[in-house]
Amino acid sequence: MNFASDNTAGVAPEILAALARANAAQAAMPYGNDDVTRRLTARFCEIFEREVAVFPVATGTAANALALSLVTPPYGAIFTTASSHIHNDECGAPEFFTGGAKLLPLPGRDGKTGPAELQAAYDAAGVGAVHHTPPAAVSLTNITEAGTVYSAEETAAIGAFCRRRKLAFHLDGARFANAVAATGATPAELTWKAGVDLLSFGATKNGCMAAEAVIAFNPELAASLGYRRKRAGHLFSKMRFLSAQLDAYLEDGLWLKMARHANAQMRRLHKGLAGLNRVEVLHPVEANMMFARLPRAMTEALIAGGYFFYVMDETARPRCRFVTAFSSRAAQVDGLLALARSHGAGPEKPPPKRR
Amino acid sequence: MNFASDNTAGVAPEILAALARANAAQAAMPYGNDDVTRRLTARFCEIFEREVAVFPVATGTAANALALSLVTPPYGAIFTTASSHIHNDECGAPEFFTGGAKLLPLPGRDGKTGPAELQAAYDAAGVGAVHHTPPAAVSLTNITEAGTVYSAEETAAIGAFCRRRKLAFHLDGARFANAVAATGATPAELTWKAGVDLLSFGATKNGCMAAEAVIAFNPELAASLGYRRKRAGHLFSKMRFLSAQLDAYLEDGLWLKMARHANAQMRRLHKGLAGLNRVEVLHPVEANMMFARLPRAMTEALIAGGYFFYVMDETARPRCRFVTAFSSRAAQVDGLLALARSHGAGPEKPPPKRR
Amino acid sequence: MNFASDNTAGVAPEILAALARANAAQAAMPYGNDDVTRRLTARFCEIFEREVAVFPVATGTAANALALSLVTPPYGAIFTTASSHIHNDECGAPEFFTGGAKLLPLPGRDGKTGPAELQAAYDAAGVGAVHHTPPAAVSLTNITEAGTVYSAEETAAIGAFCRRRKLAFHLDGARFANAVAATGATPAELTWKAGVDLLSFGATKNGCMAAEAVIAFNPELAASLGYRRKRAGHLFSKMRFLSAQLDAYLEDGLWLKMARHANAQMRRLHKGLAGLNRVEVLHPVEANMMFARLPRAMTEALIAGGYFFYVMDETARPRCRFVTAFSSRAAQVDGLLALARSHGAGPEKPPPKRR
Amino acid sequence: MNFASDNTAGVAPEILAALARANAAQAAMPYGNDDVTRRLTARFCEIFEREVAVFPVATGTAANALALSLVTPPYGAIFTTASSHIHNDECGAPEFFTGGAKLLPLPGRDGKTGPAELQAAYDAAGVGAVHHTPPAAVSLTNITEAGTVYSAEETAAIGAFCRRRKLAFHLDGARFANAVAATGATPAELTWKAGVDLLSFGATKNGCMAAEAVIAFNPELAASLGYRRKRAGHLFSKMRFLSAQLDAYLEDGLWLKMARHANAQMRRLHKGLAGLNRVEVLHPVEANMMFARLPRAMTEALIAGGYFFYVMDETARPRCRFVTAFSSRAAQVDGLLALARSHGAGPEKPPPKRR
Repeated sequence: MNFASDNTAGVAPEILAALARANAAQAAMPYGNDDVTRRLTARFCEIFEREVAVFPVATGTAANALALSLVTPPYGAIFTTASSHIHNDECGAPEFFTGGAKLLPLPGRDGKTGPAELQAAYDAAGVGAVHHTPPAAVSLTNITEAGTVYSAEETAAIGAFCRRRKLAFHLDGARFANAVAATGATPAELTWKAGVDLLSFGATKNGCMAAEAVIAFNPELAASLGYRRKRAGHLFSKMRFLSAQLDAYLEDGLWLKMARHANAQMRRLHKGLAGLNRVEVLHPVEANMMFARLPRAMTEALIAGGYFFYVMDETARPRCRFVTAFSSRAAQVDGLLALARSHGAGPEKPPPKRR
Repeated sequence: MNFASDNTAGVAPEILAALARANAAQAAMPYGNDDVTRRLTARFCEIFEREVAVFPVATGTAANALALSLVTPPYGAIFTTASSHIHNDECGAPEFFTGGAKLLPLPGRDGKTGPAELQAAYDAAGVGAVHHTPPAAVSLTNITEAGTVYSAEETAAIGAFCRRRKLAFHLDGARFANAVAATGATPAELTWKAGVDLLSFGATKNGCMAAEAVIAFNPELAASLGYRRKRAGHLFSKMRFLSAQLDAYLEDGLWLKMARHANAQMRRLHKGLAGLNRVEVLHPVEANMMFARLPRAMTEALIAGGYFFYVMDETARPRCRFVTAFSSRAAQVDGLLALARSHGAGPEKPPPKRR
Repeated sequence: MNFASDNTAGVAPEILAALARANAAQAAMPYGNDDVTRRLTARFCEIFEREVAVFPVATGTAANALALSLVTPPYGAIFTTASSHIHNDECGAPEFFTGGAKLLPLPGRDGKTGPAELQAAYDAAGVGAVHHTPPAAVSLTNITEAGTVYSAEETAAIGAFCRRRKLAFHLDGARFANAVAATGATPAELTWKAGVDLLSFGATKNGCMAAEAVIAFNPELAASLGYRRKRAGHLFSKMRFLSAQLDAYLEDGLWLKMARHANAQMRRLHKGLAGLNRVEVLHPVEANMMFARLPRAMTEALIAGGYFFYVMDETARPRCRFVTAFSSRAAQVDGLLALARSHGAGPEKPPPKRR
Repeated sequence: MNFASDNTAGVAPEILAALARANAAQAAMPYGNDDVTRRLTARFCEIFEREVAVFPVATGTAANALALSLVTPPYGAIFTTASSHIHNDECGAPEFFTGGAKLLPLPGRDGKTGPAELQAAYDAAGVGAVHHTPPAAVSLTNITEAGTVYSAEETAAIGAFCRRRKLAFHLDGARFANAVAATGATPAELTWKAGVDLLSFGATKNGCMAAEAVIAFNPELAASLGYRRKRAGHLFSKMRFLSAQLDAYLEDGLWLKMARHANAQMRRLHKGLAGLNRVEVLHPVEANMMFARLPRAMTEALIAGGYFFYVMDETARPRCRFVTAFSSRAAQVDGLLALARSHGAGPEKPPPKRR
């Protein structure tokens, strides 16, 4: 009954089975020179309806930082949302991999930003003077850290801005499957057709064990990625076990099936919670993540009842984050809702003293 | 029938089973805040007979580069053997993680170096003048890249040198299990009791899927490792699957059982090949790796017969590398030997033209 | 008639003479192993009333970035004001020299910040979790980029905060002489007695040719500075010419005499402008820098009249920056004021169209 | 009487005068936006007979490291001679500025290397495999650290190799004037006509105070140099004083006049020493530097007589380095020779005990 994050979930049985299957073929050449990895690249090309370069890695931080290092010089700047994972939750990985680039956070609403905010930031960046880090890239997240989703059209508008300003466009797709499932757009429409140059294709949160991929839509951009991945320690010797996860993930649409399930569970949770007294949902709930303020008593009851989720502050109505996963079950959602309903009506308690 | 590298082998069944077991407990908190990871640390403390700090990662390159970054300032120098993996085969990972430190290669024999070579290099390093990168660490490999082994005594002599010169001592233990199995020394005797500060504890080559660990014998050295691992993209969200591999690897001495098996297969291979006409074994064969010059006809016959191994040059008697693994079978070794014997007596062919 | 910046001024005659004098002694050992450099260190110790380590460099950017690299790990964070030079005008030098640290801009007023803002930022930094860059240092500027001044007491309050949180305290003293002159506090009171660990002691803007110094109040902090300065290309072979500038700068209080003069000229300019119709001074004018909104007609008349200063926007009343220097003359100030008075009364013009 | 290095010499009077002249024009816009800097670029274009991009800096280490950072990715490798300044005497500056590139030292004779050595190193570099840092640049020094000189033809042969292998060609010209004076070739023939892409044009050792320049023959290579120079703290605010040195240095051939003088003094010294009993000159003496083994008694007598030079070992016949400068006088050379002659005939002493 864990709604803290989709990374608390385990591994989908299809993916675990793929690992066992890959192991049956006892020996294979290392470092990606194997059949599974080759098949994986073909699958990605099919899914994105074009040639792409594929670099599997084990973590989203690695995927993001490697991708950004391809398009941002050490003295460059990266526009991103103020709430982005790369800016707040990767302990400076983009700075490390780029050799010291600067992240310039953008304002926005509901975890999203757009061409107007980008234009304003660009105008303020002192472009052309050597005293200021020149903007090199835009990095956004879809679905966003607030649980909202960029449509294909919104993405394309940002892509057009990037093109005009000669900025690279990177998309952090830690929950890309949920975005595809939520929008109904094709993977291509949400990425390269909208001007995205590089995608961090996430899979760990949606049923893999530890597997992501940097997808480069411009293979030239990827020319140095092999070297960069190796020197960052992200080239697996037994690569086939990384590739096998992603291969099974993509096979027969498993990735979208799981994302649709997670999104559906979130709709169920959202619908149930939103109607409760003194529950305030904070952003549009469009995929598998919801932020809401819950009465303190309700929060405490849920925790006591064994439900895990992140409580972001200690106010009378704490801000809580709920995430559903491929493995979330309707009964778990319903259990949470039942407990919430039975604790939502009590009197408001004062906030606790801060330590 | 793959003797190219132990990283061509698959995953030991016990370790694959551990992954499935870890998955059965469907949800767990991420980033190492889980029971398996806690148990793993306890196991390492037991095996090394003292408190140690344990940081699981997925690749040996990551383990080495992270460890070195703890003890080498960006302007520092690292003494290592000229043949070392960190110097030749990690595409500059130590330089990347340290922020630009310099590797100073040492001469040696059979992949090994010693206090005399270290002292000479130290004397030549211009210590004290700001024009020269000051030596900060020594990094050796056990078993070495030549397949030889440092005994506990040899390690301790180097450790004593490091202590005198205030140099940190890092050990690349990509095949540490094979070194323990070969020497009969305890893990403690081969490391901290001999003055080693940091160990890259390898497991991937010996039956894991992708699992290594940085072991810090001085927990203070490890203070910043958590941050460094995260920003390098090496902190797994579903950490328990990394830890589960290592946990099963250490359980009931599986790691040493597998290493002893690999070493034994290499002894069998060595014994069989060394007696053949015009086969020249190049270094003492002490663990699970052998370099030998084989007649060209023999080399070609083995390759044609489906045996994989690295051929390092194109001379009349090519230099070949053979590695055995936990999964190598005596029948495979015997098959190779039989084929070798039947092709070893032919006339010597001239070397091919170089392209 | 240049009020754009004190770096448009030339070199004080006393300092030019010192260069010629240093040259008369034709040969000297390189890299600071010379008499002038030794004498300089003694002078700094005297001025700061304690032992200090002194590292002359040629630019303020080098001084700031080197100082910060001593106290901030590559994965660390530096609190600074949103308007600070290190954050906005050094093209990522702190990021480069630290190996990728993150600058966390603080809100404030008039270019200043304080313990309350620092505490709030510290509380929001997620200290302790590896996902977030841990705060390592505070870097402030005195006089600030807004022309205001931190008193010894204000500095000490920030120093006390740093001490409590184990943060290093760096002061960018590009115009440190102006701060000393403005406050009447001693150099010691504005720095180490108030908890400052490292000072970028500026001199270029106040009459030197190209000379600054990193002053480390804790000599242990400076242990690696020699290496870092060298590898950044900031160790001069003919160091005595760098030291000679600073030596003459400090001799007989020349530095403070020049700073007092510059501050006095700014008071004269401020007094004259502040009284004019529709002139709005934007921050307290406490040293040798003033920001003010001037009527557009006045701005244009001054420019046409040969007065240089920075015009920061293109509104009807542009925001202008004026800086006085050791070489500013009262007659120049008076000339500017006379011209301003004669153009200040015209009707307001609409803002120009933005390109 | 200092023959230790040409960086012990002072500043040529013409150059000191230029500084005073630049100061007379009291105010100028900062950061190179001034007339002297513009004139300097024109002079360089004239001297090199083509358009060049010019970036003045204050030290040779900065020039070298900045130049290399333009053409070497963080994961790349740089071929250089084993004795090169960038490899031995810059405390890792190239590693710092490139973000961790690897220097691969080449064997050679008399401080020089050539196409054969480069080809062998290239063949051994494992080009194409991601495990090895891919070669990106060749960096040589002219005159070399052994005092020898690459002719235009030798340079062109190396340039042709670089072209074939798509390697950038950087020349460390710390004593470039001496090379031009020694060869009689034009600056163009020794650089871009021979395939050099980037030149560190030294001037400090030959009469400037602290002035060098990165010269980019391919202006596209220089696109990012402005940003890189700024973030490394090497953009001078009062740039005109840096440019003024170089401007006077180039005016009316002063630079070559001074270099010819220095070279002539070295010929005088060489001629006088080479004929002495038991003096062994170690490399061809082609410019203003000589390495020689001198009898120990002679060495000690010269030191006692007030002559400075580097003594590189403590053998019975120590290896000594002598360098002449623009300011060396024939009488000083003759004085040294007279003293040497009077102490060269004594019996050989045993080497001293090493501490």
